[in-house]
Amino acid sequence: MKKLNIAIIGLGNIGSHLFDYLSDNKKFLTEKNNCIPIVKYVSAKNKKKKRKIKIKKDQWLSNYLDSTKLKDVDLIIELIGGAEGPAKKLVFQALKNKKHVVTANKALIAKYGDQLAKIAEKNRVNLEFEASVCGGVPIIRSLKEGLIANKISKIYGIFNGTSNYILSTMDKQNKSFNEVLSDATKLGYAETNPTADLNGDDVSSKLKILSSLCFNSFLNNKIYVEGIKDIDKADINNANTLGYKIKLLGFAELLNKKIYQRVHPTLIKKDSYVASIDGVLNAVIVDGTPVGQSTIQGEGAGPAATTSALISDISSILRGNIKFPFSLSNKERKKLKFSDISNRSFSAYLRFEVIDKPGVLSNITNIFSKNKVSIKRLVQNPDKNKRSSSIIIITHNSKDKYLKKILKIVAKKNYVKRKPKLIRIDDN
Amino acid sequence: MKKLNIAIIGLGNIGSHLFDYLSDNKKFLTEKNNCIPIVKYVSAKNKKKKRKIKIKKDQWLSNYLDSTKLKDVDLIIELIGGAEGPAKKLVFQALKNKKHVVTANKALIAKYGDQLAKIAEKNRVNLEFEASVCGGVPIIRSLKEGLIANKISKIYGIFNGTSNYILSTMDKQNKSFNEVLSDATKLGYAETNPTADLNGDDVSSKLKILSSLCFNSFLNNKIYVEGIKDIDKADINNANTLGYKIKLLGFAELLNKKIYQRVHPTLIKKDSYVASIDGVLNAVIVDGTPVGQSTIQGEGAGPAATTSALISDISSILRGNIKFPFSLSNKERKKLKFSDISNRSFSAYLRFEVIDKPGVLSNITNIFSKNKVSIKRLVQNPDKNKRSSSIIIITHNSKDKYLKKILKIVAKKNYVKRKPKLIRIDDN
Repeated sequence: MKKLNIAIIGLGNIGSHLFDYLSDNKKFLTEKNNCIPIVKYVSAKNKKKKRKIKIKKDQWLSNYLDSTKLKDVDLIIELIGGAEGPAKKLVFQALKNKKHVVTANKALIAKYGDQLAKIAEKNRVNLEFEASVCGGVPIIRSLKEGLIANKISKIYGIFNGTSNYILSTMDKQNKSFNEVLSDATKLGYAETNPTADLNGDDVSSKLKILSSLCFNSFLNNKIYVEGIKDIDKADINNANTLGYKIKLLGFAELLNKKIYQRVHPTLIKKDSYVASIDGVLNAVIVDGTPVGQSTIQGEGAGPAATTSALISDISSILRGNIKFPFSLSNKERKKLKFSDISNRSFSAYLRFEVIDKPGVLSNITNIFSKNKVSIKRLVQNPDKNKRSSSIIIITHNSKDKYLKKILKIVAKKNYVKRKPKLIRIDDN
Repeated sequence: MKKLNIAIIGLGNIGSHLFDYLSDNKKFLTEKNNCIPIVKYVSAKNKKKKRKIKIKKDQWLSNYLDSTKLKDVDLIIELIGGAEGPAKKLVFQALKNKKHVVTANKALIAKYGDQLAKIAEKNRVNLEFEASVCGGVPIIRSLKEGLIANKISKIYGIFNGTSNYILSTMDKQNKSFNEVLSDATKLGYAETNPTADLNGDDVSSKLKILSSLCFNSFLNNKIYVEGIKDIDKADINNANTLGYKIKLLGFAELLNKKIYQRVHPTLIKKDSYVASIDGVLNAVIVDGTPVGQSTIQGEGAGPAATTSALISDISSILRGNIKFPFSLSNKERKKLKFSDISNRSFSAYLRFEVIDKPGVLSNITNIFSKNKVSIKRLVQNPDKNKRSSSIIIITHNSKDKYLKKILKIVAKKNYVKRKPKLIRIDDN
């Protein structure tokens, strides 16, 4: 029977869970893949840290980079994290030294994936990263294999559990952003530093990777990114009244031979499938020909779901077939045109908090008409006590640059009490 | 560059669609899989039938079985259909002669899959059948690869588009079963002979295949099957009032080391994910450890979605890795215990149409209590004009055999105006 010698580098929650899984399921994986997975080495920053897993003395590597040089290592599993520093050093060196690599590191793949794939292809080793995108949702393998027949025109969905938990809980419990964030941190649904989850960066990395797999293109940094920090209860309530939910969505779409990548809070119809996904779940929707629309939903994060993804990558390597990391040879990947969204059209929700005095409404509507944006629906909610008024406008399809221009012009008016809001609508 | 010579046997809607796809996407598939797919031969029952596809003279085989003997055939794609007759002959002979096989034939795989897999394994060729279960939903590849890490405890969902279309349209348009069926036939959502779709046989075949893949067991015929023909508007309206939808669901689950396979109309909560799947869509839900719950949704049938599935199988063979058809060697597949559902407990909906006279209700409730079934909710709707009454009972969890016994006892009473109904409830 063939054997595969593995080194796990990084022993946080995920690394430890994977270590246990591999020792408990050695027989099962061997039967399924006709090859024995052996955890030969492990390494992590702090040797002395108390861990629940039982590491044998001769398994520990004091220098994690030794894993890239040792002859009895075939596969390195990188669970350090971060696009730079030790993770980058490890993965580059591993592939250069003809070791297979499995990683859960979306930041690294989104930034250096093209370079890394080139080295992997040249050296005929695997670089697999199912765990880097939406943990328990087997989207990468589905794109590479189950849906391989398809010309994909659009991929979108909920790629971040933390922000989805926050938005859906603000809605259900009628609580403020900060209240829910503090609950989420206590419950373990938000990390102690949730910046990348909340400002859209986490979704952005995942979307770049998916977009490249869907369109057979190289990774591209042209992406519009906006997080959820500015969404408040009033927006959520307004959305509800208008028949929408607010979700943080990522979109990559091919329109007229150009690719648009964008991440932003989005108003979507209440009765749509995406609106029904609450809590920490992730959902990915793919529009392709011939398959039509295909949807995969599951747990997006956490040690258990991530282990499921890591094991699918490890199993693929156990079965011994070398694949291109991005499903096509470097030579065949395309240089497609990526556009920024300023010329893409959206229907949008705009909200202006203004001083309640005559002439304000007509001034605002004038600015819309001068800037080629036509209004589909307008709701004015006066607050007599505060002598202020909230003006909600839903526009017809309009170019993003005009929407943003209106926002900028109105923001400077002296009747405006706080920064105006723009949330794009997805009507599909 | 490597080549793979293909014979397509069966040129109905699906065969023709696949033929066109393969000729239009030869370059794309070659780039993705590093091997050229060549449609060397085709065959079908009637050579003279007018077809839209352009078949070259030397592509046509007058005897379809020749494809199993010709040296320049590596892969046979069986699109004849049916568990017996020519399809069976073709696939057995192909595997015996060391040809790879891809098939969309669920009836054949559900019946002879174990025997066929044994021959494929012995001869080191592939037998792939993604297209046999839920067309555009890449569930088989996901179970074999993306979700390979998981111990699966339950798989269930909507596996038949025709019956889902009928049930959801009866609900939305408040029409009778026969009205909707006739519309569905006109719209092409039901076949001219829809028996297997409506009586649960189609779901049964798919479920047997999925169950075997989930539990690493051999195929097993112990399965409870009930179709949708007895569901009427009154049941759908009653369900609505009680907060449920009625769906035809298939379930395979592992409970106390026994596997239960069942297909039947099911009451599920209105706000559940499965209840939201309307029309011809299919949805498959998998509960596994470590992944948690994972869901895949998409188009279940039709030439386009089926082609997507066939191409994923063909691509896997183009990439050249031999796999076990049921993901494990014949030697490793398990002989698990399959139980019939008589001892499994369900909460259930029962409906009795009775003559409206004193004593009937107490007689019925007496029968329940004598047979160890406790009532959770009872609704009586008298129809004064007809001097009849409709009694709806929702039970607590009760063994299936007791529920069925009650049905049988009450059916014989002279106050009963028509055959009583039993629909199981899924509260998860």
